[in-house]
Amino acid sequence: VEGHHAVGEAKAAGLLLQLFVTAAALERHQGLAAGVPVVEVGERTLRGLTGAASPPGVLGVSRLVARPLAEVLAGLDSPHLVAVGVAVGDPGNAGSLIRAADAAGAAAVVFAGEPRPGGGVDPGVDPHNDKCVRGSAGSLFHLPIATVADVGGAARSLAAAGLALFAADAHGGADIDASADRSPLACPAAWLFGHEARGLAPDTLALADAAWRVPVYGRAESLNLATAAALCLYASARAQRQGRR
Amino acid sequence: VEGHHAVGEAKAAGLLLQLFVTAAALERHQGLAAGVPVVEVGERTLRGLTGAASPPGVLGVSRLVARPLAEVLAGLDSPHLVAVGVAVGDPGNAGSLIRAADAAGAAAVVFAGEPRPGGGVDPGVDPHNDKCVRGSAGSLFHLPIATVADVGGAARSLAAAGLALFAADAHGGADIDASADRSPLACPAAWLFGHEARGLAPDTLALADAAWRVPVYGRAESLNLATAAALCLYASARAQRQGRR
Repeated sequence: VEGHHAVGEAKAAGLLLQLFVTAAALERHQGLAAGVPVVEVGERTLRGLTGAASPPGVLGVSRLVARPLAEVLAGLDSPHLVAVGVAVGDPGNAGSLIRAADAAGAAAVVFAGEPRPGGGVDPGVDPHNDKCVRGSAGSLFHLPIATVADVGGAARSLAAAGLALFAADAHGGADIDASADRSPLACPAAWLFGHEARGLAPDTLALADAAWRVPVYGRAESLNLATAAALCLYASARAQRQGRR
Repeated sequence: VEGHHAVGEAKAAGLLLQLFVTAAALERHQGLAAGVPVVEVGERTLRGLTGAASPPGVLGVSRLVARPLAEVLAGLDSPHLVAVGVAVGDPGNAGSLIRAADAAGAAAVVFAGEPRPGGGVDPGVDPHNDKCVRGSAGSLFHLPIATVADVGGAARSLAAAGLALFAADAHGGADIDASADRSPLACPAAWLFGHEARGLAPDTLALADAAWRVPVYGRAESLNLATAAALCLYASARAQRQGRR
């Protein structure tokens, strides 16, 4: 975990195990060091420990955050919004997805594997990848993260938790911006977001109660995964709030 | 420009000057080579020419896309939506901003420098940076891109083109999701998006007719620049479409 902001979030979540920090950064962020084993290091050493373009002065070691989905769902009290990344390929996108889900008020983020058409399973990225941790900007420690081997099992568990299953589908489904009938968007829902290039597999689409599409008003062929996810999750959050008014 | 998709967009825009391509990729994408000087190269050479994590089989050299703002505005017929990146720091974010603006139906994207409080100007990223070109996923060639040294000059030109100036401000302004009075969002507008960490400078905020905020329903401190931009631009596009109905 890199940088005092994200390390502070890991600490607040009770997950921080160890701190690597420069003398200068330690002086600025003394609160981070309380009750945690600290290793004071030079800037060059710290740079060697991080893959970040601009190395931070603080680096923390955190416990793993991901838990089994059943355990995460058991800890939630009638969740309204859950984001599910299905076979997400790029760890930076996974991090941005967590950040967007956190902003939209999601109760949890799930990372699920997806069966490959030819056999086997695409497990998708590991949310503990350094680019994911960095891209989440601390949100990784704000809401529960679940990993599940197969999206089919995840779908059953989420449905059993009272959530409608919405598939984000660039090529079909109802327009999330169409104002005529927004009420279907207002129900408690888990959103399935697919692989950056392939989207959701047909078998995964078939699991969903409804498919939704972000309208493209210009000439872009598609949207970035996390951008599309943010638009979908906010559309749900907005409709749910309007429904409660 | 990397990959057959983006190179195809550069070619369709009449900007493609030269093609570097492997024999295998040339066979798959013969249409790209028509009328353009082609250099056939090995995979290792192509990998040396790109900064991409997974090197494509096709690489193109394009003319620069950025033009002066006055020239871009002169070519637009009563624009409804323009995105302005002000002192944007990260080229990947700049690319995602272009892609989101294209999807939301923006008429143009402007990259503007911003005066530094201590003097001088932060010019922001160059939209021709390879990470920006890659992040735009071809959208760089879909809509006019303008660069302008100072956001103050840009603001005057955009206002003269009949556009309201909206500032995206994480710390203040009206909630874009509040349904009570959405009509102010429906007018033709240019949106100012600031630096990833600092946001817009106070002097830049003072240029705006109105400030808007993406609501954060969870615990995220902020949203990624391009994600916030997408939510704002789509809010405008949606309100404009509802206004026209």
